Amino acid sequence: MTKTAAIIGGGVIGGGWAARFVLNGWNVRVFDPDPEAERKIGEVMANARRSLPGLTDVALPDEGTLSFHGSIAEAVEGAEWIQESVPERLEIKHATFAQVQAACDAEAVIGSSTSGFKPSELQQGAARPGQIMVAHPFNPVYLLPLIELVPGEAGEAALIEKAKAVLASLGMHALHLKKEIDAHVADRFLEAVWREALWLVKDGIATTEEIDDAIRYGFGIRWAQMGLFETYRVAGGEAGMKHFMAQFGPALKWPWTKLMDVPEFTDELVDLIAGQSDAQSGHHSIRELERIRDNNLVTMMRGLKAQNWGAGALINAQEKMMRAGTALGAHADEVEADQPVLTARRTVPLDWTDYNGHMTESRYLQAFADATDRFMEMIGCDADYIAKGGSYFTAETHIRHLDEVHAGAVIEITTQVILGAGKKMHLFHEMREGARVLASGEHFLLHVSLDTRKPSPPSPAIEAALGRIAQGHAGLPRPEGLGRAIGGAR
Amino acid sequence: MTKTAAIIGGGVIGGGWAARFVLNGWNVRVFDPDPEAERKIGEVMANARRSLPGLTDVALPDEGTLSFHGSIAEAVEGAEWIQESVPERLEIKHATFAQVQAACDAEAVIGSSTSGFKPSELQQGAARPGQIMVAHPFNPVYLLPLIELVPGEAGEAALIEKAKAVLASLGMHALHLKKEIDAHVADRFLEAVWREALWLVKDGIATTEEIDDAIRYGFGIRWAQMGLFETYRVAGGEAGMKHFMAQFGPALKWPWTKLMDVPEFTDELVDLIAGQSDAQSGHHSIRELERIRDNNLVTMMRGLKAQNWGAGALINAQEKMMRAGTALGAHADEVEADQPVLTARRTVPLDWTDYNGHMTESRYLQAFADATDRFMEMIGCDADYIAKGGSYFTAETHIRHLDEVHAGAVIEITTQVILGAGKKMHLFHEMREGARVLASGEHFLLHVSLDTRKPSPPSPAIEAALGRIAQGHAGLPRPEGLGRAIGGAR
Repeated sequence: MTKTAAIIGGGVIGGGWAARFVLNGWNVRVFDPDPEAERKIGEVMANARRSLPGLTDVALPDEGTLSFHGSIAEAVEGAEWIQESVPERLEIKHATFAQVQAACDAEAVIGSSTSGFKPSELQQGAARPGQIMVAHPFNPVYLLPLIELVPGEAGEAALIEKAKAVLASLGMHALHLKKEIDAHVADRFLEAVWREALWLVKDGIATTEEIDDAIRYGFGIRWAQMGLFETYRVAGGEAGMKHFMAQFGPALKWPWTKLMDVPEFTDELVDLIAGQSDAQSGHHSIRELERIRDNNLVTMMRGLKAQNWGAGALINAQEKMMRAGTALGAHADEVEADQPVLTARRTVPLDWTDYNGHMTESRYLQAFADATDRFMEMIGCDADYIAKGGSYFTAETHIRHLDEVHAGAVIEITTQVILGAGKKMHLFHEMREGARVLASGEHFLLHVSLDTRKPSPPSPAIEAALGRIAQGHAGLPRPEGLGRAIGGAR
Repeated sequence: MTKTAAIIGGGVIGGGWAARFVLNGWNVRVFDPDPEAERKIGEVMANARRSLPGLTDVALPDEGTLSFHGSIAEAVEGAEWIQESVPERLEIKHATFAQVQAACDAEAVIGSSTSGFKPSELQQGAARPGQIMVAHPFNPVYLLPLIELVPGEAGEAALIEKAKAVLASLGMHALHLKKEIDAHVADRFLEAVWREALWLVKDGIATTEEIDDAIRYGFGIRWAQMGLFETYRVAGGEAGMKHFMAQFGPALKWPWTKLMDVPEFTDELVDLIAGQSDAQSGHHSIRELERIRDNNLVTMMRGLKAQNWGAGALINAQEKMMRAGTALGAHADEVEADQPVLTARRTVPLDWTDYNGHMTESRYLQAFADATDRFMEMIGCDADYIAKGGSYFTAETHIRHLDEVHAGAVIEITTQVILGAGKKMHLFHEMREGARVLASGEHFLLHVSLDTRKPSPPSPAIEAALGRIAQGHAGLPRPEGLGRAIGGAR
């Protein structure tokens, strides 16, 4: 049954939560007194729809519904997760929680997007303090996986586990902080950098653009995949972390930093920053910058996904959950052998399009190759098998590009076995968007030994699984386009 | 004539500089009294060789030589660039500069990798103060583009311009800071975060692993592509930067932070950190972590390259310089029409290999598609033409995978025009590593209107350029494998 989430307070953060839930198949009920709430959330939804679905190689579930309600009580009806993203003032949050708890399920998770308040502060005066926890996200919430989860001392273990499970199902990483502190962890670092950056601008050492370049051309790229301590561990090299710290420790005593002090936020300073920011970034609208940002995040996160590292490993973990129990996680003996096999159902990612504005040709082959991998996995040629030294190499490929497709489209691939016996495997993939045929991919593969790099017989289990499907498919009509050469039918 | 760089002081940083120069075709002369210098630099070279060459889509020049010398005077002989990366003690650096300047060319750039000293401090007592400038890199130096270039008041304009040009040719970004300050810019941010992180560990708020996850799952990914100010500008949304700062300003006054204070580096704290770091990262050796890091950096930077943003835009800029005046930047009327055309010479990037340990099949098509793009550019179907509404779509593709190839290999693609008339273009690409044939890619393309998405005639200029090469190629032997279907020759 479709789950429900309630979003109390929209805007960029509330809207980002709404988008993440809706796109993962939850129904979302929103309460926000802002008359512009629906428009603002709609804009976040548009950004999310163009970027999130392509993060995984398996299509997200059908979208849930998004509805707007006139009261908190209505919004939290039936909700398993209630996310508060109201303004950062404690009395407003307390009033919100009181209304939420007067109407919601006692077993729902109540998360707060607060960047500054501690859970004990949020829980003051609450009917059920342990139900309220900090669940602090990062913009864009529909893409970045980090959630700082701070239940505080009143937190209930079962509810904390439930929160973590829900977040994992959304592809998010619950960083469970056991001790509460102002601003949690990440924003304390951002505050530290912000203060230093303000001094540098104020003192004319660097402009906003120079500061940003100092970040994104250097340590910023490192931090997308390894944090502070792991980076330093690697830099410390063979000598190890203690050696590294022995070198780094003394620097702390140098009178380098003005960090003990906060620059005054005068009109002059504000104007200086705003002006430099305009010079640096003003040639793009905010909407353009959001889209550029999301394109960049998707491409980098999918890169980390291919490396199975960091934020990319989180995507793989979510994807594994999504495949389980579906056709896209099935073993060969679980599929009908008398039909082409479903080997892919996925959304074309943002970064798969080219200068022609459509999915670029090499990504057709990437999709087909992934479909081949799925088929191989189904018949038993999975990661474990490959680790033991057997695999399939593709010897020849023929692709008919029949129609265009765009980022965000859900494409399906079905696979017919033309030949599957001994060392040989001849597959015919068809790619469609709904009923529209986009392309065919015909591939001739040979089972090989990864030691000798030469053709070798597959295991009996693989041969049997492949043979069963090949036999079932032998009765299917010959696919259109099979055996083509460029220049005409065979 | 091959340029020469001198590296004074090896290790991770000096070795990284050496690698970047050598792989970009410079001869590098090293002086380092450490008896382990050659081994340590060799290890950095190995890491660099496996990662840097695949950043660009055009192969780097042939490597320069790497030699080790018994004195500074010998090392700086003939050097245009001299990079000092000796220990962070001013008297050692002063002694080094004295020896360098006693022997080097007065017009060479002397860069210092110092993370802590200001140029005025480095220049004290120097024979030619203006020749010495801070050129502070980021680890891994062979991958990350940022160089904080701080010439100080004594800096000479011509030498600064020369330094920037050299760095750009190495794919690096010279962040020219006009005012000197301790630790320049980036490390001041790292120091700020480091201090806060030490407090969080000491006070038991978070472990090293939790801190790292708070970075790499959240703002760390953002900072790989947009820095602090641009990120906040986007977050500020329609209301703009001033509105954002109005909201953010007050937070600075909260007594959040212990930043005014530095935790004492006791043995207990050091042991605590080292232990947590071991628990977090100890299952990988340092060498493994270096390679994982470099895989991640390459994949993310190549992702940004495809988006032409941030560090990726820098790679594109370097690549453009590399193509200029070579066969890979040529126009159709500059190439011999009686030979297959060279359309690619590139290194297989780290992230193009798959679980079979070789270049994965879809990347063969990516390489062929890029070669097609190069050919299209040559005949006039370049970015400007495409922006005006004409392009080629691929209708059909046939790939013969003949042999494996691995990350780091330099592959070449030559292209023969089988048919080039009217709306039709039929190309045959051959991919080789040296003499070894790896694959063929046969493609049938149609010129289209990007408005109607339907076939349309190319411009007369394109038709003529294509026709000239098609005519010249008509006399070439039919390539082996042309017109194949899977299952046999046509």
